[in-house]
Amino acid sequence: METADGAGPGPRIALLVQYDGTGFNGWQVQNGGRTVQGEIERAVRVLTGAERRLTAAGRTDSGVHALGQVAHFDCPIRIGLKRLCTGLSGILGRDVSVINAYAVTSDFHARYGAIAREYQYLVYNGRQRSPFMLHRAMWVHHPLDVEYLRAASSYLVGELDFASFCKKISADGVTTRRLDSIEIDRIDDLVVFRLRGNAFLHNMIRIIIGTLCDMQRRGDKPERMLEILAGRDRDRAGATAPPYGLYLKRVEYATPLETYESAYPL
Amino acid sequence: METADGAGPGPRIALLVQYDGTGFNGWQVQNGGRTVQGEIERAVRVLTGAERRLTAAGRTDSGVHALGQVAHFDCPIRIGLKRLCTGLSGILGRDVSVINAYAVTSDFHARYGAIAREYQYLVYNGRQRSPFMLHRAMWVHHPLDVEYLRAASSYLVGELDFASFCKKISADGVTTRRLDSIEIDRIDDLVVFRLRGNAFLHNMIRIIIGTLCDMQRRGDKPERMLEILAGRDRDRAGATAPPYGLYLKRVEYATPLETYESAYPL
Repeated sequence: METADGAGPGPRIALLVQYDGTGFNGWQVQNGGRTVQGEIERAVRVLTGAERRLTAAGRTDSGVHALGQVAHFDCPIRIGLKRLCTGLSGILGRDVSVINAYAVTSDFHARYGAIAREYQYLVYNGRQRSPFMLHRAMWVHHPLDVEYLRAASSYLVGELDFASFCKKISADGVTTRRLDSIEIDRIDDLVVFRLRGNAFLHNMIRIIIGTLCDMQRRGDKPERMLEILAGRDRDRAGATAPPYGLYLKRVEYATPLETYESAYPL
Repeated sequence: METADGAGPGPRIALLVQYDGTGFNGWQVQNGGRTVQGEIERAVRVLTGAERRLTAAGRTDSGVHALGQVAHFDCPIRIGLKRLCTGLSGILGRDVSVINAYAVTSDFHARYGAIAREYQYLVYNGRQRSPFMLHRAMWVHHPLDVEYLRAASSYLVGELDFASFCKKISADGVTTRRLDSIEIDRIDDLVVFRLRGNAFLHNMIRIIIGTLCDMQRRGDKPERMLEILAGRDRDRAGATAPPYGLYLKRVEYATPLETYESAYPL
């Protein structure tokens, strides 16, 4: 017997998914247009003959990429995990790929079970536009100083009210989140930001990145970040950095995915 | 007075150019279709009002990328070097960018003056297709061993007859070239090949990469490379690796470009 949300007799499966967000209207089917969720659900239907709903760890916005999105569904058929990866990737377009599959337990939930999420934001800080950074990184031409960015961002680490860093229309609930770390490194002309936290508000990372770059361009002191935080007002913070620099990199669970049977063990 | 090949009263300029080769039918105008040379010559015409012919260090094939192509022309107007870069990049499409400009002497020749060229070839060696490697790297799924690749490629370093590594139709001239080095490194799932030499035969690097990967898949001994070389016959070597893994990285001149006045000094 199948239930309305697609639970069936097969095992629960967690997929590890990569996608180039450029050609998608985000993860979620509700967004309309071509979505990652919609494409994978279509591939599951083609492969298994049954409709299944997918639930993702992070519902990425239009243009945002994923290196390690996790999504679960209840598989309607018994199928080898490698064949599942290869079958789905073969049906999917070239901008999305299923890179691993795990036979998780029936209580696994990709979204509510996640204890930490890791995102990466890429800023291209070269003097002229790079053709290879198109749809891959935000281009900032004024020279960025990693030491300054580290100092200013240090005030954001901890369990804090991030109301100033949340898309206004979405800020109706609790705006406290725990940000575990922000690491910033330069590799030639690329500035790489790595953020780890339990969960993120809507546009939170993109507003943090935009604010850091704006602060440095204006010559603000790093401590200015404390005032922006304390204001609890989106208007205090800087611009929202574009979606195409953002990558969902890794999702962590209390029971690591690696402990389950998988198509490709570590 | 202007001559037929575009020499004029302005100074000779060398441009440092990057392009994503995906949307181009190679460098050269003669290829027909959209070419990098054609696009930059059009941008020069729009910016300066005069027709000028560009001469590049390496006439890359369709789909091949460049991180540091060098091309010279005789600039018909006096213009600041930064303005020249920004002006040309602004007119050009988003898949090509002029990242620096040098005021070279009138005897500078981008092609004949080059004393060494450095290319990079990227192989994606992950278990499933990567959306981010589309048009950027060749996908090889059988596991590559960097130690094996280094051993097999070591026989190719030196001044040698590379007739086995040249597109048949192009192999009517002298097929001796000097290969200075092949460096091979793994960065996670990416295998990066760096080749440096005075000049390369048509498809030489792509046939070297294809042969190395084929040899490992077949389980050949590294020394098998000596027989392939000695055969001086294209049919002895392996497949031609696809163009989209290849990047022209750097061109060297007896008088380094950095010694001339430039838009962006080192």
